[in-house]
Amino acid sequence: MTPETILLDHGAGGKLAHRLTTEVMLPILGNPILDGLHDGAIFDLPAGRVAFSTDTYTVTPLFFPGGSIGDLAVNGTVNDVAMCGARPIFLSLALVIEEGLTMAELERILKDVAVAARRAGVAVVTGDTKVVPRGAADKIFINTAGIGVVAEGVNIGGHRARPGDKVLLSGSIADHGMTIMTQRAELGLAMEMQSDSAPLNGMVQRMLAAAPGIHVLRDPTRGGLGTALCEIALQSRVAIRIDEAAVPVRPAVAGACELLGFDPLYVANEGKLIALVAPEDEAAVLAAMRADAYGEAACTIGEVTVGSPGQVTLTTGIGGERIVDMLAGEQLPRIC
Amino acid sequence: MTPETILLDHGAGGKLAHRLTTEVMLPILGNPILDGLHDGAIFDLPAGRVAFSTDTYTVTPLFFPGGSIGDLAVNGTVNDVAMCGARPIFLSLALVIEEGLTMAELERILKDVAVAARRAGVAVVTGDTKVVPRGAADKIFINTAGIGVVAEGVNIGGHRARPGDKVLLSGSIADHGMTIMTQRAELGLAMEMQSDSAPLNGMVQRMLAAAPGIHVLRDPTRGGLGTALCEIALQSRVAIRIDEAAVPVRPAVAGACELLGFDPLYVANEGKLIALVAPEDEAAVLAAMRADAYGEAACTIGEVTVGSPGQVTLTTGIGGERIVDMLAGEQLPRIC
Repeated sequence: MTPETILLDHGAGGKLAHRLTTEVMLPILGNPILDGLHDGAIFDLPAGRVAFSTDTYTVTPLFFPGGSIGDLAVNGTVNDVAMCGARPIFLSLALVIEEGLTMAELERILKDVAVAARRAGVAVVTGDTKVVPRGAADKIFINTAGIGVVAEGVNIGGHRARPGDKVLLSGSIADHGMTIMTQRAELGLAMEMQSDSAPLNGMVQRMLAAAPGIHVLRDPTRGGLGTALCEIALQSRVAIRIDEAAVPVRPAVAGACELLGFDPLYVANEGKLIALVAPEDEAAVLAAMRADAYGEAACTIGEVTVGSPGQVTLTTGIGGERIVDMLAGEQLPRIC
Repeated sequence: MTPETILLDHGAGGKLAHRLTTEVMLPILGNPILDGLHDGAIFDLPAGRVAFSTDTYTVTPLFFPGGSIGDLAVNGTVNDVAMCGARPIFLSLALVIEEGLTMAELERILKDVAVAARRAGVAVVTGDTKVVPRGAADKIFINTAGIGVVAEGVNIGGHRARPGDKVLLSGSIADHGMTIMTQRAELGLAMEMQSDSAPLNGMVQRMLAAAPGIHVLRDPTRGGLGTALCEIALQSRVAIRIDEAAVPVRPAVAGACELLGFDPLYVANEGKLIALVAPEDEAAVLAAMRADAYGEAACTIGEVTVGSPGQVTLTTGIGGERIVDMLAGEQLPRIC
């Protein structure tokens, strides 16, 4: 009989670990490559340069409106690979579990991983499970690493923004971060908020089909839109000007930000991307974004200018201008 | 000024995170691909099938005779990729840090990562850092994922053992596990023990050059030699018979096992491998192993037989025979 909570023995590499893998994990996550249960996965890759990315997910609570640590761990890494202009194909999945996590919680998380992987069109092909004693971790941390392939002619990079480029955003900001914050604060806010956790690889493929010469792609997760734009401005040694009124923020999210004192510019997103494209590509890329389920509200929010290298400015609703710096402190730990 | 301990802000994706990356990590780990600081790494891979593996390292203490969590995180994943018959090339590195880890500890660990990566001939090309509040993790957990390339004609798999195959072992067992255990127990044992943490990819390349048709490779980490052999016997549906007297155990390690009541067969190794090869390849593969610095004590310890599928037996020194089962409980958590 499978114990109802995770025990240290489940991570010991012995009998119980073997049963956890074969009786709990493989039925949920299995595929021909993973089923091999070797020290690693072996597969062929299509031709092209390879993109490789990793992230560990430590979000709390584990389950929240719009998602869970399980789908976040898939979507986050899928998106990082996609932001390289790549088509993500394979994921690794490494769990650090605190002794005492219930088997039901683990199964629910693994099912979310499986559903998210199917939705994103990627396969979990290799993995690892460690169990640490109570108090040595908090419930579960999940690391994923992802591998994708970059098509010929695609060349995305944070250093490739050029003056004149248009800055496109795929939709409203701050949904993920404010959802987690209000959950965590147990504010009992009856606001209609949910995480935007979503795979963006399909949208990126549409965008690259419309305009293979896209300069920069980035998903503004921790640090939010403001920090992502600062990083791009620094790496490309350009200035970026954003029109505050053009940046979509849902009313409920704006209200929660107001109430809790957060600037939505710095709040994490988990299903949004920014693209910097030459002006002649703007219309085609926007149309491609809007044709995707996760980009219906895509819009142009600003442009790259010849101002001070590394500087991001925001034109405010009342016509003023302010400098956008990187996030200077922690808004809230364990947002992703 | 860089703070002397890791703060939550270091994981927030903002200014302090940016400085941690550019001022602490890149000077230690930097290379042309990592320096790009994109959401992921982009590179070309040589022709061949790709091997992909991941492991999270949670070992305590962080530093121990013969190694640290830093070199373990490199060697462990390098070895998992090598056990696929692949040449490991690229690693990802994802840190989960508990607030309060000292900057000096982090730098020491990162330097160990850098030294181990150079020694193994791999590059850390992408990474992630999360910081969790005090009590939500224990000092630091490190995940690495590795990518390697499998040469034409190489076909390693846990299911490929055949009756008649010889079982080769690259050296003494139980060094890593007993070193950690005696450190942890604070026994003050003045025994000369140290972890065998080492990269085995060079040895695997020598072995494959000598005999590309090697059937199975595995590094007996958690669960030890006994569990690894059981897994192979199960996957290949064969029996394996091992000669206890042929399995090398250092006297100090054997003494510590005796004293603490551990069976060296189930104690973790971090720099040993087992190879199952056709009898006609035995001599060439053994010679290749012995030519490598990490395989000088390589020897044949048993063979695959036509006995009960999945069964591993041990011929004891006094001529008896006992069944070797998978490790049934946890010997000690957080051994790797």
